[in-house]
Amino acid sequence: MVTKRSERPDERHPAFDQNLLALFAPRSVAVVGASRDPSKLGYLVLRNVRTSGFPGPIYPVNPGARRIQGLPAYPSVVSIPSSVDLAIIVVPQPAVLSVVRDCAAKRVRAAIIITSGFRETGPLGAKAEEEIVSVARSAGMRVLGPNCLGIIDTVTPLNASFAARMPSPNGIAFMSQSGALGAAILDWAAARDLGFSKFVSLGNEADVTESDLLRVWEYDGSVRVVSAYLEGISDGGRFRRVASEATRRRPVVILKAGRTAAGSRAVVSHTGALAGSDAAYSAAFRQAGVIRVQSLEELFDSSLAFSSQPLPSGRELTIVTNAGGPSIVATDAAEMHGLKLTPLTHRTTDELRRQLPPAASVTNPIDVLGDAGPDLYRAAIDLVLADPRGDALLVILTPQLKTDAEDTARVVVEAHRQTNRPIIACFMGSAGVRSAIATLSAGGIPNYPFPERAVAALGAMADYADLKKRPTERPRRFTVDQTRVRNVITKARAAGRPNLDSFEAAQVVAAYGIPIPRAALARSLDQAVQAAEEIGFPVVLKVASPDIVHKSEVGGVRVGIQSPDEVRRAYDEICAAVAVRAPSARIDGIGVWAMARAGTETIVGLSVDPTFGHVLLFGLGGIFVEVIKDVSFRIVPITSADAAEMIREIRAFPVLQGARGRPPSDLSAISDVLERVSQLAEDFPEIRELDINPLVAYPPPRGTLAVDVRLSLSL
Amino acid sequence: MVTKRSERPDERHPAFDQNLLALFAPRSVAVVGASRDPSKLGYLVLRNVRTSGFPGPIYPVNPGARRIQGLPAYPSVVSIPSSVDLAIIVVPQPAVLSVVRDCAAKRVRAAIIITSGFRETGPLGAKAEEEIVSVARSAGMRVLGPNCLGIIDTVTPLNASFAARMPSPNGIAFMSQSGALGAAILDWAAARDLGFSKFVSLGNEADVTESDLLRVWEYDGSVRVVSAYLEGISDGGRFRRVASEATRRRPVVILKAGRTAAGSRAVVSHTGALAGSDAAYSAAFRQAGVIRVQSLEELFDSSLAFSSQPLPSGRELTIVTNAGGPSIVATDAAEMHGLKLTPLTHRTTDELRRQLPPAASVTNPIDVLGDAGPDLYRAAIDLVLADPRGDALLVILTPQLKTDAEDTARVVVEAHRQTNRPIIACFMGSAGVRSAIATLSAGGIPNYPFPERAVAALGAMADYADLKKRPTERPRRFTVDQTRVRNVITKARAAGRPNLDSFEAAQVVAAYGIPIPRAALARSLDQAVQAAEEIGFPVVLKVASPDIVHKSEVGGVRVGIQSPDEVRRAYDEICAAVAVRAPSARIDGIGVWAMARAGTETIVGLSVDPTFGHVLLFGLGGIFVEVIKDVSFRIVPITSADAAEMIREIRAFPVLQGARGRPPSDLSAISDVLERVSQLAEDFPEIRELDINPLVAYPPPRGTLAVDVRLSLSL
Repeated sequence: MVTKRSERPDERHPAFDQNLLALFAPRSVAVVGASRDPSKLGYLVLRNVRTSGFPGPIYPVNPGARRIQGLPAYPSVVSIPSSVDLAIIVVPQPAVLSVVRDCAAKRVRAAIIITSGFRETGPLGAKAEEEIVSVARSAGMRVLGPNCLGIIDTVTPLNASFAARMPSPNGIAFMSQSGALGAAILDWAAARDLGFSKFVSLGNEADVTESDLLRVWEYDGSVRVVSAYLEGISDGGRFRRVASEATRRRPVVILKAGRTAAGSRAVVSHTGALAGSDAAYSAAFRQAGVIRVQSLEELFDSSLAFSSQPLPSGRELTIVTNAGGPSIVATDAAEMHGLKLTPLTHRTTDELRRQLPPAASVTNPIDVLGDAGPDLYRAAIDLVLADPRGDALLVILTPQLKTDAEDTARVVVEAHRQTNRPIIACFMGSAGVRSAIATLSAGGIPNYPFPERAVAALGAMADYADLKKRPTERPRRFTVDQTRVRNVITKARAAGRPNLDSFEAAQVVAAYGIPIPRAALARSLDQAVQAAEEIGFPVVLKVASPDIVHKSEVGGVRVGIQSPDEVRRAYDEICAAVAVRAPSARIDGIGVWAMARAGTETIVGLSVDPTFGHVLLFGLGGIFVEVIKDVSFRIVPITSADAAEMIREIRAFPVLQGARGRPPSDLSAISDVLERVSQLAEDFPEIRELDINPLVAYPPPRGTLAVDVRLSLSL
Repeated sequence: MVTKRSERPDERHPAFDQNLLALFAPRSVAVVGASRDPSKLGYLVLRNVRTSGFPGPIYPVNPGARRIQGLPAYPSVVSIPSSVDLAIIVVPQPAVLSVVRDCAAKRVRAAIIITSGFRETGPLGAKAEEEIVSVARSAGMRVLGPNCLGIIDTVTPLNASFAARMPSPNGIAFMSQSGALGAAILDWAAARDLGFSKFVSLGNEADVTESDLLRVWEYDGSVRVVSAYLEGISDGGRFRRVASEATRRRPVVILKAGRTAAGSRAVVSHTGALAGSDAAYSAAFRQAGVIRVQSLEELFDSSLAFSSQPLPSGRELTIVTNAGGPSIVATDAAEMHGLKLTPLTHRTTDELRRQLPPAASVTNPIDVLGDAGPDLYRAAIDLVLADPRGDALLVILTPQLKTDAEDTARVVVEAHRQTNRPIIACFMGSAGVRSAIATLSAGGIPNYPFPERAVAALGAMADYADLKKRPTERPRRFTVDQTRVRNVITKARAAGRPNLDSFEAAQVVAAYGIPIPRAALARSLDQAVQAAEEIGFPVVLKVASPDIVHKSEVGGVRVGIQSPDEVRRAYDEICAAVAVRAPSARIDGIGVWAMARAGTETIVGLSVDPTFGHVLLFGLGGIFVEVIKDVSFRIVPITSADAAEMIREIRAFPVLQGARGRPPSDLSAISDVLERVSQLAEDFPEIRELDINPLVAYPPPRGTLAVDVRLSLSL
């Protein structure tokens, strides 16, 4: 699996900083703070660089020594006679800044700062970190860390870390925001069939972030899958842009920790990173084509499959097994991950029946029976791979009396060479299958100890294949009346009002082409009556006040008004109620609204996530959103495909399709509203919250109506 | 972990068949079909019995040999000069019946039939199996199998199987309905820290079933946890009774495979077992106190924790770690499994602050930092175990530069000896922690490679502790009018009608004390008008016909009738509509019903599961049941606690509590209805389906109203 030099990063690609590459493939390395004392990090790092097989010159830097570990040492970076691509800095914290200055003067391309004691320790450390970054940036030097374990690149090869163990090379590029976790994974992987192309401990991410690495690895031929443990993302917008491109070329699998409320608190106290809400992360990952996994085990299980197998072209799974139990477990897991058991063609089934013993099961899962030798496995595997149906193959083996696991493994490896479908194995057991698993591994077939894990890995591959198939699509741009919105917002901000009144808020969405009921703002009883007559009965009266968010709760709404007399009564009642219950509220008037016909009530909402910015929400009205929390999210801007997914994703979607004799809703009109709100949020970043609740949906082609709108601004 | 003889099954316990014990602890064993040929099962089985350390006499039986594997052989079971407790039968299929006859004549107490070729092969095999059972039953002999791997008991010790490997002894008793899966698990476990007290391959379960083993293991001191892989349960009722008792004394953890529709099909083709619906299994397990796991890995992860650690007394988890990342992952997992991070007392926090370095995190998770030695771990562990809060402890260690994993493991083992709280470990990595993990294991501390798996195991323990705390409660019995129901049902059955009409169905639930609207059955227009006037307007008219299940769809319902004139019109309209749309339906009359006031619509349903019998369903009306599938299930009979759980389990429960300004519903009245329907189902097993839809719930104390009832019978 070692990658040929010709597959190295395409350095002609213009989009990323060339100096970033020096982190992985420097021509020369300086270890600043190199030491002779085996208890020091500076010893370990130099030893690792030396013994990793790094082909270029290595310069230990230490003012107190002439030679370190057999290499000539230099008193400072600037005193090194040749050019230095990468500096690994392990000096004590107070000395780091001057070393970075030296590196800048020496035109070092990239530095790894292993030293800790910066942002993670508090405001003073943060300040020191900022100074370092500022020096580095003005010199164009890239900095990984501080407070990190370092980098290992098995292709260069270079171990620029203090982790003792160099992993075996493989197609997985792994980055971790937790150094200790990364180190544990290195140790764990060493005992398993798991190698890495790159291993990066991100540390404090003062300069180089997860997005930078995604950028580089997207064009690195030695990287077959990007795998990441992340606790937070520093620049959500950039991450989305970079990841969206990277996932078109490489699978990106991320475990985002701090998922739950409790976990997020732990993240904050741990890294000081501001954790975005979990739903926003899920939405952003999905939109960017990133596969989000739920556990460390899943992260490496799926990375292993991605690194060694071609992608499935669909979701049909064929299982060949020598035991019923494990194939039932696998079948359960398949259904859970949205994989279907391939319905094999009759021709295949007939041929299986001819070649397998009479008691064998010839429908998927294919059970070759407990006494099956490699030949029966071969017959079954060849036949199912020749079937036009079937996107992936899972070979299960339990060690039974006559089982020849080793030769069966050879059969699987052979089959792998002759197909472009992914094959994964679940040879269960330990001593009975150990050498067989080694054979599989050498042949590029990942093996999982339990069927559920094998199927989960295939599920992740199928998910990625599906995401990759999505057409590249830009958000639609609608012709809208931006000026009108600008005016409304300017007026509110000028008045120092964070909230628009209901009438203003409706104007804003109307200006973006979202249908609202006919309405007029009445500032007197007579105006109200006149407006009602013009609009046509029945009407609704609603107080218009930027200070009253919950209008119903203060008696500010009257519905189903049928006549001028009722308008008068309602007008007076609202004025009286509001005067009592919201005496200090500024009242802009009383809105007179055409009463919307009944339809299916939905909600479209907008809020701001600290990491990703505007997040759009969709759901059915009332209980569905507030109790069942049956909602979908996407980060702004959204495409038409995103909007369609948002609508279909909610559990109550059948209601919109017309379940239980209800009229179906105009889905394309709802999609239209979602996309227009997305454009509104993009055009006006100052919108902090927007709620269209309800957005009443009617049967096609009758569209939707934004019956009530709330909007608040950041001032 | 080897258990002392005095802890062996309490043979005085009257409830289980003493002969069953002979399967595990026979005084003597005959191997019928013993062989000298190493390629034969009869060779392997005898070798395994001989080499397993079995302390009693072993009798090879084979008519063609005088001595086998150094032991005197006998031509038949009856020719053995002493008594035989257990016969292991490995003769060819056609010879099995006569061997079983011999065993019966010899008064053998139990037999293990390893030979296959019975029920699993089709009707002929099934017949042969029935004959065997019939012979065994009349002799009082118990039979395990046929078509199984056998039994291993590490306590006796006895390996009565053809699995080569005797597992190490431990508190886990494992049974498997898949022999091959069981064998793979034995092989897998051998390379891990996983031993078994008992290992049983259940085979075709012609006689001995999972329930029999539960019964025996409940009273076996060597069994700390019962662990099972099941594809189906033969007698759901018995399983529920047995498991309910067993789980009061031992944790029972089950992976029920064939969960999904596709998996169930695989089960059917595999074992011929009739798979009950998955929801019914989940309900039955929960009611019986069984822990249901979702994967093989979870099955063994949780079994390991149960077998070695005391139960937590609550759901508060304390984490001590030397790295932030893994503790965040653990915190996420804790929240997912309903565990809370212990809020430590100020005293503990203060003391932690005093004893740990300044940068350490002294709130849960406690981070002793990457360079922590065993002493800091000891300080933190001692302090958190001394805290009155906290039900379980998770110790996480990542191998870092100065980490002494081995000595830290000793600290954990030491702490385990001095606390009655469960402690589990997640020492991550491989070479760096290998000997430490061995130390942990020897000290009875389970270790998991990833934090998520450690927390999941603790979650299962907390779930079991919670289930165990439930009071033993019998279903309430209500005073009801059974005769009235009997009469209605008898009449319908006599007429060969599976469906009751809506009027009859309402009578049935009313006879069981469930409130229904005032109603009368009108057989003429005049009767209808008179009934409406007596009941009081508004009324509802509904056609009463056993042939019309969906009354609204044929125009058989008119609601909101306000006057005698409207009654007349509605009556005529219904008659006309039904005559056109259901011309052949038998019409019992037109029901005149008091119109129920609006309230919260719920659904109570009853159906029959093939394994467990009557299953009760509860949910909110309409979309919630049909689209969101937000329902809860329990097997009949239910207790008051079950009813309360059913109500609280649905996602929409806040709606019943009065979410979003709605009036709260009378929960105890809903519970009452559920319990009364449960009693009805118990009293009348012939009820095939019952739907109270809607059961309208009102604010307390105004109860509920069963507005529409459908009931069908098995004829």
